[in-house]
Amino acid sequence: MFYLYLCILNITDMIVKERIEALRETLKHNGVKAFIVPSTDPHMSEYVAPHWEARQWISGFTGSAGTLVVTDIEAGLWTDSRYFLQAGEQLQGTGIDLYKEKLPETPTITDFLKERLTVGDVVGIDGKVFASSTAKEIEKELDNKGIHLKSIDDPFASIWENRPPIPENPVFILPLQYTGESCQEKVARIQELMKADEIDVALITALDEIAWVLNLRGNDVHCNPVFVSYLVIGKSDVILYIDNNKLTPEVKDYLNECQVKVHAYPSFFSDLAQNTQGKVVLADPAYLNFATYNGISPQSRLVERKTYVSLMKAIRNQTEINNLHHAMVKDGVAMVKFLKWLDQDADIYHETEMSVDRQLHAFRAAQADFIGESFDTIAGYGAHGAIVHYEATPETDAPLEPKGFLLLDSGAQYLDGTTDITRTIPLGPLSQEEKEDYTLILKGHIDLAMAVFPERTRGVQLDILARQPIWKHHMNYLHGTGHGVGAFLNVHEGPHSIRMEENPVTLQAGMVVTDEPGIYKAGSHGIRTENILLVVPSGEGMFGNYLKFETITLCPIDKRPIIKELLSDEEINWLNQYHQRVYDLLAPQLDYDERYWLANATSAI
Amino acid sequence: MFYLYLCILNITDMIVKERIEALRETLKHNGVKAFIVPSTDPHMSEYVAPHWEARQWISGFTGSAGTLVVTDIEAGLWTDSRYFLQAGEQLQGTGIDLYKEKLPETPTITDFLKERLTVGDVVGIDGKVFASSTAKEIEKELDNKGIHLKSIDDPFASIWENRPPIPENPVFILPLQYTGESCQEKVARIQELMKADEIDVALITALDEIAWVLNLRGNDVHCNPVFVSYLVIGKSDVILYIDNNKLTPEVKDYLNECQVKVHAYPSFFSDLAQNTQGKVVLADPAYLNFATYNGISPQSRLVERKTYVSLMKAIRNQTEINNLHHAMVKDGVAMVKFLKWLDQDADIYHETEMSVDRQLHAFRAAQADFIGESFDTIAGYGAHGAIVHYEATPETDAPLEPKGFLLLDSGAQYLDGTTDITRTIPLGPLSQEEKEDYTLILKGHIDLAMAVFPERTRGVQLDILARQPIWKHHMNYLHGTGHGVGAFLNVHEGPHSIRMEENPVTLQAGMVVTDEPGIYKAGSHGIRTENILLVVPSGEGMFGNYLKFETITLCPIDKRPIIKELLSDEEINWLNQYHQRVYDLLAPQLDYDERYWLANATSAI
Repeated sequence: MFYLYLCILNITDMIVKERIEALRETLKHNGVKAFIVPSTDPHMSEYVAPHWEARQWISGFTGSAGTLVVTDIEAGLWTDSRYFLQAGEQLQGTGIDLYKEKLPETPTITDFLKERLTVGDVVGIDGKVFASSTAKEIEKELDNKGIHLKSIDDPFASIWENRPPIPENPVFILPLQYTGESCQEKVARIQELMKADEIDVALITALDEIAWVLNLRGNDVHCNPVFVSYLVIGKSDVILYIDNNKLTPEVKDYLNECQVKVHAYPSFFSDLAQNTQGKVVLADPAYLNFATYNGISPQSRLVERKTYVSLMKAIRNQTEINNLHHAMVKDGVAMVKFLKWLDQDADIYHETEMSVDRQLHAFRAAQADFIGESFDTIAGYGAHGAIVHYEATPETDAPLEPKGFLLLDSGAQYLDGTTDITRTIPLGPLSQEEKEDYTLILKGHIDLAMAVFPERTRGVQLDILARQPIWKHHMNYLHGTGHGVGAFLNVHEGPHSIRMEENPVTLQAGMVVTDEPGIYKAGSHGIRTENILLVVPSGEGMFGNYLKFETITLCPIDKRPIIKELLSDEEINWLNQYHQRVYDLLAPQLDYDERYWLANATSAI
Repeated sequence: MFYLYLCILNITDMIVKERIEALRETLKHNGVKAFIVPSTDPHMSEYVAPHWEARQWISGFTGSAGTLVVTDIEAGLWTDSRYFLQAGEQLQGTGIDLYKEKLPETPTITDFLKERLTVGDVVGIDGKVFASSTAKEIEKELDNKGIHLKSIDDPFASIWENRPPIPENPVFILPLQYTGESCQEKVARIQELMKADEIDVALITALDEIAWVLNLRGNDVHCNPVFVSYLVIGKSDVILYIDNNKLTPEVKDYLNECQVKVHAYPSFFSDLAQNTQGKVVLADPAYLNFATYNGISPQSRLVERKTYVSLMKAIRNQTEINNLHHAMVKDGVAMVKFLKWLDQDADIYHETEMSVDRQLHAFRAAQADFIGESFDTIAGYGAHGAIVHYEATPETDAPLEPKGFLLLDSGAQYLDGTTDITRTIPLGPLSQEEKEDYTLILKGHIDLAMAVFPERTRGVQLDILARQPIWKHHMNYLHGTGHGVGAFLNVHEGPHSIRMEENPVTLQAGMVVTDEPGIYKAGSHGIRTENILLVVPSGEGMFGNYLKFETITLCPIDKRPIIKELLSDEEINWLNQYHQRVYDLLAPQLDYDERYWLANATSAI
């Protein structure tokens, strides 16, 4: 099964201007002075189906993150540092001003609105595509100045011609051999927790949470095997709100067996008041959209916190862990075949960022139970490696040369697991600075991988292990160090993380998390080394149990750029032992030449 | 100037029972079913004047932390793990049950009350000795079960015979040569910040904040050079509420020059409504007592957050930093004289924990501008070293022997600065385990001391540097790794910290913080190594400026227990360089024999 590859057409400035005028007309009819267009869908997804790409359709800006604000005379787009350059180019001539987030001179969206609007003015949003937590914050801020926030019907319904429909792709069952726990067992566990907390009904609105509970997968979002739906778990009944076209007879039977009732997707909103009337309702405000929030019966008590599912999903059972190990061997085999090809067989002068990605895809696609990529490959050669979320396009696709680094961040969806791996590959001679940077990033990567910590430790406490080697050289990266990875689900998942910001969720045995420090030097090079770690018990000790990481990604880390003197003995031992394990686990799956290459690539330093 | 040494008399079980009965009588008159007695004063001080030691007076429990709850038929004392043993002994036979905090089986105080009381019952507190933030939390929790929280007049006023009065010790001026910034300048800075935030009046209720703003010091609290008072800073006026007896003519003139009006201490409450009427009022809910909170005019807007002063106070100016360096040389000289004496001159068989403390005191008292200890020395020999907040008493005072470790945590108040240092001193042969533990603690201490980090880094991010070496051996300590230290003020101060818990305050250049990892093995030994670090600029770099630590405590770290193979080259270099600096800065103040001893103690490993 392949994912639709979205071909982004550049639209002209005139078209953008026309579309914004069309939106302004609609707003006038609604008595709305300004309108905010975010980048998400009714389920607060990180990646969305084309139907919900309204912000891109109207502004022409194709980045994954950005919020458009349109007033009667102005339009502005807020985006983060990853997209300053791209947004600057794509917005040129459109009349949309670029607001660079987190710069001291940039106003927040609410400050921008408060400056331009006055008491009694109305700001509109489509409440379906705003997290209730976000909408309530905006509402409160604007309210201070007597400006009202109003949720209106999706204005793009009338102005967006040939809008892609809400996806109707079929849903399929992920068998017990992959999930290790039946839908019935998962629902029973949730209902037990609900009972203990005196919750009558849980609204599950995040698409990956629904897929996990039901042991179903879909194909509605590029690279994310989820399906558009809502799930309502009561004390003894479960209702799935989904478009009937998505359900094969087999899936219908399965849902019937699981005692899951099926209603039409739009009925979720019309049933909402009745489903919640007189109930204690649990929902996660980060995934509950504002329209849903407002549709909950006033005769109910809403408990706003995580819905149990995100934590249950993040803690893998033994079946999932065993499967993930299989997936890692397959992904490692594909990576080794690719790295050997790039090292020995490819004619570098004839390859580009996109061509090597196609080659990597071919190696992965040959593996059993391969479904597709888990995200669009980041293949950044030379200076492109310094663009954190770079995605090569026909316009930017750089030819490779036998020098410098190729940063390659990629991953796959297999039925038995989702992978995410970054290697920074030297294509020829490197500068001393490139070697030093590479070694410092490796040092941080290893220091985190070697961590031992007591139960109840949070990611923020571990984050510095990956950063301290580069902080000592006054360098840093502004992305997180680690994120959760789904089990044949979204490549980014919570609720845990390893980052500089506080996140109260503790790391627990059975969780997986990436370890991906990086350095990005604009115009020169980018380096990142990423493996996936599994949290495993380390044993009992003072004040309780201790945990550690097991690195489950299996792929050599290129030794050629390493300046050995910068590594401690402990770090060198870790690398040698890791490489020995990579060889031992992958060699049986490789032919003689590949084994020979891998033996070299994993020999001790 | 010396602090009064409080001689704690053990009171009998019968007396405790009588006192609790007397309290119950008072409660009946007030229609109160249960009463909570905390350990603090109206200023939420960590250490309090004897007048406010009601919890100790009524329960006989002398630990610094603990909360007593008395119902009509039961009494319970909640305290933390430091005091489980001591409280168990002291409460025996009193009828007061011990509740060990943070154990899974221990109910919280509110859970205890909710189990025993019923709808309509009233729980009493003396609102003056409860932080408003704490009282409001309790109120909310109890309210869920229809139980009311009521603030009543201090019941100990009538039942505590011979209660020590509120202290009336004289206040004195800390000259500009020590503070580096006049009272007028500090007030002007605060008023400027108030203006920017549209604050009309700031209630400064924490005693160390008041002392810092006014450049005054006092002698009301054991080891803490503060004085009992309140400070009210308006847009253009400042009122100090203080007992007139505490003010010498010189201090009165000084306050007059500073344009600080003086009112009687109790008038703070009677003036409160008028002082806040129609105003925007700033107060720190952690230091604002509940009675004050309730006395603020309803015709006001209360802004509850830190009052500017805690952060201003924590960031030292150049004068304070220069002074602190002087204080550190003096304290280092005293410590070196002491360590040499213990090593060469003392007859260990004739010394005890308390006798070495007296000797250390003598060396410190000989230094210029010595005021007293900054806290009661923790001198724990052998197994006593494992009791985290051990304080030797005539009953426990252990004789020393020429083996094992003496853990010595001590500090001094000098006019030019406050010190806090821990050394773990081998008195003779050590076990392999003691040596390993000592080296791992040193490793963590050094790793934190060597940290480099970007601006805006919080203590929680750095904490693991001190813990990772012992976590790798499944050991941990449950206290913080680092706390702020006052400038001739309280030895514990905020708002920053280095600990496992999130604290949003970032580390900033000019702050000082301790670095004190430890290991405590009950019945065997305790180890802690503590220096004070100053946050200093490290230079510009990627995404902004970087900071690092300068170790300002000057005293050799005993090399004899070190297992060199457990230290990295970087750690060994740090230790050797630190020792070189200790020698260079202290040697000029020492005689030949002391210099000779120090040269050995600081020679490279």
